[in-house]
Amino acid sequence: MSQIFLKNIGLNGVTKGDKMAKRVVIVGAVALGPKVACRLRRLDPEAEITVVDRDNLISYGGCGIPYYVGGDIADIEGLYSTSSHVVRDPEFFRACKGVKIIPSVEATGINRQEKKLDVRYLADGKTETLEYDKLVIATGATPFRPPIPGANLPMVFTVSNLHNAQEIKEKIADGQVGKAVVIGAGAIGIEMAEALTDLWGVETTIIEMADQVLPAALGKNMSKVVENQLEKNGVKIILSERVERINSDEASRVTSVETSSGTMDCDMVVMSAGVRPNTQFAADSGLAVGRSGALLVDRCMKTTDPHIYAGGDCVELRNLVSGENMTMPLGSLANRQGRIIANNIHGRASQFKGTVGTFCIKVFDMGVATAGLTSAQATANGFDPVHAIVSQPDRAHFYPSAQLMFIKLIADRKTRKILGIEAVGGQGDAIKARVDAIAPLFQVGLDVDDVCVLETGYAPPFASAMDIINNAGNALDNILENLNKPIDVIDFVEKFKNDEIRVLDVRDTIEAEPFVEKYPDRWLNIPQSELRERLNDVSREEPICLVCGTGARSYECQTIFIQNGFTNTINIQGGHAMIRIIDPEFI
Amino acid sequence: MSQIFLKNIGLNGVTKGDKMAKRVVIVGAVALGPKVACRLRRLDPEAEITVVDRDNLISYGGCGIPYYVGGDIADIEGLYSTSSHVVRDPEFFRACKGVKIIPSVEATGINRQEKKLDVRYLADGKTETLEYDKLVIATGATPFRPPIPGANLPMVFTVSNLHNAQEIKEKIADGQVGKAVVIGAGAIGIEMAEALTDLWGVETTIIEMADQVLPAALGKNMSKVVENQLEKNGVKIILSERVERINSDEASRVTSVETSSGTMDCDMVVMSAGVRPNTQFAADSGLAVGRSGALLVDRCMKTTDPHIYAGGDCVELRNLVSGENMTMPLGSLANRQGRIIANNIHGRASQFKGTVGTFCIKVFDMGVATAGLTSAQATANGFDPVHAIVSQPDRAHFYPSAQLMFIKLIADRKTRKILGIEAVGGQGDAIKARVDAIAPLFQVGLDVDDVCVLETGYAPPFASAMDIINNAGNALDNILENLNKPIDVIDFVEKFKNDEIRVLDVRDTIEAEPFVEKYPDRWLNIPQSELRERLNDVSREEPICLVCGTGARSYECQTIFIQNGFTNTINIQGGHAMIRIIDPEFI
Repeated sequence: MSQIFLKNIGLNGVTKGDKMAKRVVIVGAVALGPKVACRLRRLDPEAEITVVDRDNLISYGGCGIPYYVGGDIADIEGLYSTSSHVVRDPEFFRACKGVKIIPSVEATGINRQEKKLDVRYLADGKTETLEYDKLVIATGATPFRPPIPGANLPMVFTVSNLHNAQEIKEKIADGQVGKAVVIGAGAIGIEMAEALTDLWGVETTIIEMADQVLPAALGKNMSKVVENQLEKNGVKIILSERVERINSDEASRVTSVETSSGTMDCDMVVMSAGVRPNTQFAADSGLAVGRSGALLVDRCMKTTDPHIYAGGDCVELRNLVSGENMTMPLGSLANRQGRIIANNIHGRASQFKGTVGTFCIKVFDMGVATAGLTSAQATANGFDPVHAIVSQPDRAHFYPSAQLMFIKLIADRKTRKILGIEAVGGQGDAIKARVDAIAPLFQVGLDVDDVCVLETGYAPPFASAMDIINNAGNALDNILENLNKPIDVIDFVEKFKNDEIRVLDVRDTIEAEPFVEKYPDRWLNIPQSELRERLNDVSREEPICLVCGTGARSYECQTIFIQNGFTNTINIQGGHAMIRIIDPEFI
Repeated sequence: MSQIFLKNIGLNGVTKGDKMAKRVVIVGAVALGPKVACRLRRLDPEAEITVVDRDNLISYGGCGIPYYVGGDIADIEGLYSTSSHVVRDPEFFRACKGVKIIPSVEATGINRQEKKLDVRYLADGKTETLEYDKLVIATGATPFRPPIPGANLPMVFTVSNLHNAQEIKEKIADGQVGKAVVIGAGAIGIEMAEALTDLWGVETTIIEMADQVLPAALGKNMSKVVENQLEKNGVKIILSERVERINSDEASRVTSVETSSGTMDCDMVVMSAGVRPNTQFAADSGLAVGRSGALLVDRCMKTTDPHIYAGGDCVELRNLVSGENMTMPLGSLANRQGRIIANNIHGRASQFKGTVGTFCIKVFDMGVATAGLTSAQATANGFDPVHAIVSQPDRAHFYPSAQLMFIKLIADRKTRKILGIEAVGGQGDAIKARVDAIAPLFQVGLDVDDVCVLETGYAPPFASAMDIINNAGNALDNILENLNKPIDVIDFVEKFKNDEIRVLDVRDTIEAEPFVEKYPDRWLNIPQSELRERLNDVSREEPICLVCGTGARSYECQTIFIQNGFTNTINIQGGHAMIRIIDPEFI
């Protein structure tokens, strides 16, 4: 690689005007585009690198928009400045990076035969044709605006660029927004709802057509935790409904939204109903796109044209767990791909194999992280998913700052390969740490036994001796081996409320008492320490759910029941800790 | 596995009195021993399980001792209670776990031929012989007490069990300790020094015979960061010295310690000079031990006797990076091994492959985490280590709670395989997250390119779009490709102080000015944005170090120099951020 490099820069260091210089045109200057350009310049001083972008603001951290709206970032320039507070504008890229960026220019078509890109200057409509040796498509994606009446009213926003971010913040700061509706409970919808509620006290409602928040990332049990967290912090949530119309007054001011079940007053609507890749001009030139409309690329990020690369939000990536293609619009993946593309253009065969779908989000003071497939996605992909849910402190239970953490770990029943993980808890870095510790292993075929012995850093201020991630593996192993016969809290609560199931609480009497008093016929109590002597107090007939603080002792008790021939016990996964966070009103 | 299980518990659930019941004797009841016993009971209701321990206190979190001494944990019972505040004593194990633990009993010998363990009751000296089908050795390790005059004085402590933990705390609380000396700057020494200083205001000095703290875990550059952190918080550090004698007065009270270079007053000495495995009785029976004196075990944790298992601090583990055996006395590994041993005794071939040496420690408000080999260890193991050091915020630089993090990533030059990682920073969970994200991959042969594209969770409150772990990979790739020619800060500072090197500061003039004023002949300033036009201001002759805020821009500038034929530039890894943390007095 160093030899290639030395050859390309020439022996005498003179670089300009070499007629062999490679012409590289990059369409898009937000995340991946500038990364390709700058890396390539560092590899190749001769290349003629031109980046064009529709927008006049470039190289910004779009994922920071909710934190700008919510006030964590005071000044919008923070989102397009370097860590040393230099604005990343075309002059910065010219002077510091040796890269030419032309803003406010739109790509309109590709003549692949002649290797030419047609562009149009948005200021005056002039068109031009740029010749390329290599073309990079980094056009990203555009938020989807559901085609409903009122979708184009002035106070209906998407979260797509810094201009509308600024406009949203101005309207709120102006006092124009008392109530807002967010359409869609994906990551951006939730982050925007937090921003509106937390800083500005806007009465915010999220309306989601699925029956849970974060449907692409979480199973129902964990999504319920996030829903409670949002509601506890003042965000209203309406699930399983669609917004059918946005109403306005005679001055075109938003007044309300209508769903199938009613009307809700609001002054602003934020649409966060997913994104669509910006690939029309590329697809028109005959480049192959996938079902999502995003471009198909190989592991070198090359499209179906060997002279055209693409990456970021406008391509499909291979999901390394399911093997299927997916889009994964994240600035982090775009940046990593950018370096890969530059390497390949320069002649080094770097690869980007795909994604395991690692995802994280802050929801007020809670952290949520996931990777791989949800149980539903696993089933849809032909797996037979089995899961464990564990509750455990995120550090040694005796360490003062310990907080409860909840992990759902999913494996395929037959192969025992890990398919997914979902984690929530109060200390976000610790949540992310657990998911990051196993997600990169999904692609090498991590199985349940590997998780049981997974080695992660241990000291009481950071972890338990048997960390929650290992215990999640242990619990899943026990479930697969039929030593632990579990029920999820969300299913337990439903059954219990429908009077379909009894409970045996194996905690100490003082802890179980309030429940026993409230449900004298259906909530029994035998402390774990007495269970071996009192097995005959428990019927062998009808099903009975075992519960303790976290699901660990109730599992231990279940092994005693099973060893004594009981076939009717079911262990509540995550115990009272999980019940409290899933259904705080349970008692 | 479930079939084996069903067979073993019998079809009718009747389990007691079966004459085929397996007799399992476990020596040691701190971490691994109880884990084996409890797991085995859950797998096998029939087994006769007996655990013996020398101590009267059992099943405690020894790693929590410094936090008990330092006051984070008020009550010592916290260290041997469950998370639901039940004391883990023999009665608890009997009633809740179905396991018999006999405290205050010492193992004295093994008759392997007849499968018998000789024990002695410490209370009355009575002896007994326990027959076993399977024996488990979980005897742990004992702190090494260097054989120097005064080593056995009453105020000279090791940190080995709850009794001396309690005694240390009582002496301090009594006001008997104004000054303390800690011998050894490993993890326990540092944690104890923090405990003494932080809560009690004891004037504490650590004396270490190596030339750095944490010599087994960190390279010199990073160890300097930890030394500064300790000193900033009031702990005095003396390196490259041995304590040769501990002096006392006529009442046997400790008065001072003597080293080769002088005498230091103190009232208490804490010895934390490593541990020695408790394996004498086992070795005497002919079981094979390694160079460390710890027992040799296979992947099933079986010793050289097929009926004897061992695990925890008294065995050698395979280091999965070097391939060599090592001891790794950590409660976390012991617990994971405990489950493996129980599985194997029960007939399921579970494996524990070894360790990558993951380690973490809190040092006041700083987190330190490492895995794999240090550069010195890598060299000693026949590798040719190359490393990168990067400074970067631990979350998006525009996110308000972002703090700087420092990572050293080490790879083998020829194979590009990752050999080690060291990380330090202000937010410990975030530090641990980075190390945990790559350490489990060491054993599958992670290389530098894998780290460049490593997928970890991204959202601005938790990470940068190009996370520091990826940038560590990128930097190391650039170094291996000769695009980045680096120098460590610690080496730079030495050369600069010896007047051997000049600096080109590529930050803005206002930032560089104080340095330029102080060293007008040796500290040049050309802001990055002007460099392409001002290359001729820089001599091509003598070596010049490039510096910026973090090492990123100075690397970019170095590529410009190299592309223009300069061969004399050296990039200061980690930039001013690293200089400030390595040598806060530099300017």
